[in-house]
Amino acid sequence: MPVESPYPLVSIEHALHSILAHCPQFAVTRISLSESQNRVLAEDVLAPAPVPPFPAAAKDGYAVIAADRSRLRTVLGEQTAGQIGNLMVVPGSAVQIMTGAAIPAGADAVIMVEYTTQQGDSVEIETDVTVGDDIRPVGQDIEAGQKVLDKGAILGAAEIGLLAAVGLPTAPVFRQPRVAILSTGDELRDPGDELAPGQIYDSNRFSLAAAVTQAGGVAHPIGIALDSPESLKQALEHAIDTHDAVLTSGGVSMGKLDLLKPLLEAEGTVHFGRVIMKPGKPVTFATVQGKPIFSLPGFPVSALVSFELFVRPALRQMQGDFAWQRPRLQVALAHAISHDAHRTEYQRAMVYVKNGKFLARITGFQGSGRLLSLVGANALLELPPGEGQLPAGAQVTALLLQALGA
Amino acid sequence: MPVESPYPLVSIEHALHSILAHCPQFAVTRISLSESQNRVLAEDVLAPAPVPPFPAAAKDGYAVIAADRSRLRTVLGEQTAGQIGNLMVVPGSAVQIMTGAAIPAGADAVIMVEYTTQQGDSVEIETDVTVGDDIRPVGQDIEAGQKVLDKGAILGAAEIGLLAAVGLPTAPVFRQPRVAILSTGDELRDPGDELAPGQIYDSNRFSLAAAVTQAGGVAHPIGIALDSPESLKQALEHAIDTHDAVLTSGGVSMGKLDLLKPLLEAEGTVHFGRVIMKPGKPVTFATVQGKPIFSLPGFPVSALVSFELFVRPALRQMQGDFAWQRPRLQVALAHAISHDAHRTEYQRAMVYVKNGKFLARITGFQGSGRLLSLVGANALLELPPGEGQLPAGAQVTALLLQALGA
Repeated sequence: MPVESPYPLVSIEHALHSILAHCPQFAVTRISLSESQNRVLAEDVLAPAPVPPFPAAAKDGYAVIAADRSRLRTVLGEQTAGQIGNLMVVPGSAVQIMTGAAIPAGADAVIMVEYTTQQGDSVEIETDVTVGDDIRPVGQDIEAGQKVLDKGAILGAAEIGLLAAVGLPTAPVFRQPRVAILSTGDELRDPGDELAPGQIYDSNRFSLAAAVTQAGGVAHPIGIALDSPESLKQALEHAIDTHDAVLTSGGVSMGKLDLLKPLLEAEGTVHFGRVIMKPGKPVTFATVQGKPIFSLPGFPVSALVSFELFVRPALRQMQGDFAWQRPRLQVALAHAISHDAHRTEYQRAMVYVKNGKFLARITGFQGSGRLLSLVGANALLELPPGEGQLPAGAQVTALLLQALGA
Repeated sequence: MPVESPYPLVSIEHALHSILAHCPQFAVTRISLSESQNRVLAEDVLAPAPVPPFPAAAKDGYAVIAADRSRLRTVLGEQTAGQIGNLMVVPGSAVQIMTGAAIPAGADAVIMVEYTTQQGDSVEIETDVTVGDDIRPVGQDIEAGQKVLDKGAILGAAEIGLLAAVGLPTAPVFRQPRVAILSTGDELRDPGDELAPGQIYDSNRFSLAAAVTQAGGVAHPIGIALDSPESLKQALEHAIDTHDAVLTSGGVSMGKLDLLKPLLEAEGTVHFGRVIMKPGKPVTFATVQGKPIFSLPGFPVSALVSFELFVRPALRQMQGDFAWQRPRLQVALAHAISHDAHRTEYQRAMVYVKNGKFLARITGFQGSGRLLSLVGANALLELPPGEGQLPAGAQVTALLLQALGA
């Protein structure tokens, strides 16, 4: 009898569904605005008060009565931002006013300083205005009680500014998953060490840590486990005790020292152990003590592609991001490409715009070990299985990994 | 005589050119891979050694001689990843081998375990192979001496993995600019405080800090300066002494308390004090002790739009990013829009793809104080000055601020 994996090959959809079902949204926590960048808002935010909270000058100039047609008006004084005087504008008078200052009583318009000439204690007005000119009415930007941000919003510069503008010093956000990252394999050494024959450098620990951070998780690379049941068991149990999720790479194919699946079976539940895809076929998902364990293949590209398809959505969902999918786009192939006959294949590509059309060009040799195929890639092409080549011009689906160059 | 600004209105191109000329690239520093995410690579990186460094098994299975046609072969032993034995494959024999292990002497192909059946000390081979099958030759992924990353590359997951894979524990990157962020204005209070009449919350300090961080700088919000020459002078001098650049907001229009320009004139050189654009006309750029001072308008949208156009390019250039421009894209307006007759106007918009075409829809009322116009915006539309409306379908240029939804 030939050797076969005991794990059925499941579809990508099945695998993702299984993962998302075991990775529920985390609890809500409240953090200061200065820590909130890129976090996911956990509640709708309503403005407690209007912005601006008082009628304010939109320009530097003079607060006047619009219907007043006097050419020369007595300047009663000045109103600067942040101060409230007791000046009262009457016909024939004006108050000098600065941008952002409250409109004094009696005034109903502001005349820009550019249209005035000061003459001693008076000001000459060189233009007509209508009621409300260059006044920002109460609530012009934000009305009291208005919803300003939706639950699920990602907090960037504008969103954080908005929270500050309505007076909120903290933001309700979902807690971030703390993710342990474990490389496995006797052949792995740390960059900077000398390599003995048969050894290679561990790169997954570093690339996956960056990928976890990019996905909004807190990455904790915890080292390299050797290919022994004891070393793996100890590393895994420690990782599970102190983290929300564990990400391993290596040790999941069919070799005698691929010890992860038996260990995960012993400690918890393996939900799937193989997926019909290329690269990433041996990707394995388990839960141990209710916590998700993602066991990715050891080849560097396989690890990052399966991270992208399975781990990133899980980490985004845990943080409360409803939009955990990457944007998908139909693109035309710039050249013919070979692809797998039996499995959906994810090839690394540069998607670009030419003459208003989206084109895609793959990033050279697509070997599972060749990290260079991900350098300069802004998309994964999702190529359904089939015989023969896909011709230039064929329409395929691209998963956008980052902003398009244009 | 009407009041006029003594500063000539300069073009956007002139302003940007002036800024970039005063913001040279920073020095190179070497940091650990785990700190290197999103940093800009300061040197080309060549691989010191090939990857893989030895001929390695691409699959779990048996190392054999391809020309050997024996159906049953004696298993001489096993070769696991990370170990070098002294096994020698001869005709009629095979060595069990694991993915990533070095190919033993004599063997020139690997047969996947799925095509074999173990029979006692022998293995039955059920398929033919040719020389090189499932062997990763030396340098398949990376050749010795090959350039793997270009100076200027932004270090993401794949790039960091690549540095690790070639054995480099550190990355040469450009130093990040440390940016002091100062809000100005007597009317400003911190979020969470009570507002007295005439006061508003400071939002720029928070939104600009997030924008600086997003642009790769190190943001240090240093507080609020009051509208007095002493308060401003003290805050500015302290900021300059301890930072690479200073970002202020407010105090640059034409009011009596717009004290920043006179102070910058006294302390250094003002390169421009007004730009023909909307919003952001009063944006001011100076150097003091050779350090760049960006004085942005106080309205929250004006501050973020002028940050985007002038400060982000400067911060990216300081960090060695040659591609400091945002991608520009021609898009069609989804609806008619009004725009400024005399100044290039930057309106906040959502650019999206429909039926393979790029369309843009603006994000509601475009007031300079309305941060909500930036929420959900992924682009700035660059609208050249002109009378009348731009009709639906008109082609305009969009500056892409983030990844497109599709």
